[in-house]
Amino acid sequence: MILCDVGNTTFHFCKDSMTERFFIDDYQFEPSDQTIYFICVNQKILSLTRNFSNWINLDKVIDKSQYYTTMGVDRIAGCEAVNNGVIIDVGSAITVDIVSSGNFKGGYICLGLDQSRQSYLNISPQLDYSYNFEQNFDKIPKNSRDAITYAQLGLLYKDVLSYNLPIYLTGGNSIKLKSVFKKAIIDDKLIFKGMKNIMKKVHLC
Amino acid sequence: MILCDVGNTTFHFCKDSMTERFFIDDYQFEPSDQTIYFICVNQKILSLTRNFSNWINLDKVIDKSQYYTTMGVDRIAGCEAVNNGVIIDVGSAITVDIVSSGNFKGGYICLGLDQSRQSYLNISPQLDYSYNFEQNFDKIPKNSRDAITYAQLGLLYKDVLSYNLPIYLTGGNSIKLKSVFKKAIIDDKLIFKGMKNIMKKVHLC
Repeated sequence: MILCDVGNTTFHFCKDSMTERFFIDDYQFEPSDQTIYFICVNQKILSLTRNFSNWINLDKVIDKSQYYTTMGVDRIAGCEAVNNGVIIDVGSAITVDIVSSGNFKGGYICLGLDQSRQSYLNISPQLDYSYNFEQNFDKIPKNSRDAITYAQLGLLYKDVLSYNLPIYLTGGNSIKLKSVFKKAIIDDKLIFKGMKNIMKKVHLC
Repeated sequence: MILCDVGNTTFHFCKDSMTERFFIDDYQFEPSDQTIYFICVNQKILSLTRNFSNWINLDKVIDKSQYYTTMGVDRIAGCEAVNNGVIIDVGSAITVDIVSSGNFKGGYICLGLDQSRQSYLNISPQLDYSYNFEQNFDKIPKNSRDAITYAQLGLLYKDVLSYNLPIYLTGGNSIKLKSVFKKAIIDDKLIFKGMKNIMKKVHLC
């Protein structure tokens, strides 16, 4: 069984226990007999998949009753993977979702690391700093690099910890936040776990 | 006496009790006999002011011993204006500085409202939402507009309130955050107050 999570910038495939990521611009669709169960937040790619009958969109089979209409299907899959936790998906955006006793409590969408760094540079060349992933967010910053990192990661860190739930890190850039969320469970296959749980509910696996 | 606070996007003048703001692209330097005491975070404009002897840079006379080298001079001026408070300067960036008993405790730099909105759009057209300034940040969001607003303003709101200090809102877009920080003191002349305090310390006024 092949699973694919299509984001805004990458195709993320999973076959058995193996995963592989391709940038969207580098990926070529080809006719194949292999069924690919997928979710997709990228409207352009979603249109392309319609030309390939082996690409099966899981979006249609998800019970979305506890979620909201415009919620990204990747976020829903993440929530379907855990019973209790804060799920941080670090991709072109950083999504944060809270699940408690199997219930979706809500979530929010931060800018991705690359996008927010570029935005500081757009404001002023004096704000061009790389993030300090080793920063102690219990102190209020007294230098420019930390002042920018605190705004993008410190506020997030404080909020995430306030839920007092297990923290799950997933997504292409999850490793970058490992030193920020030291106790987090890093699971690059979390979305696929959620996809499998969705498939089990409708007896697709 | 004329004061001017030059930011990344605007000239902000103060004469007596009156203020006026000009976008940088709309402003023409002209020779004049009137002395303008200014601070400036914009390197391009800073170079231009050197051609006009009536523009006096206050940067040189500031006692910066409790601040840090790369801290924006507008943030320092804001801190010099209050004895106790969280100063939120809402411009092309949103700077947040904490002053307690006259001591600078630290601060941070968030993206400005326009810049962060544009950044969401850059990630995906599906993330193109205006901010909900009336949102209740005590609830975790369950719709896309609130999910984005919470990331940019809810995390900031929670952090700012945690200091339990008076909140001062200043800067060109301060009025937009009035409904977020309901108890804040909105003071469009806060930076000028700080500039005057700096001038008093060195007997310039």
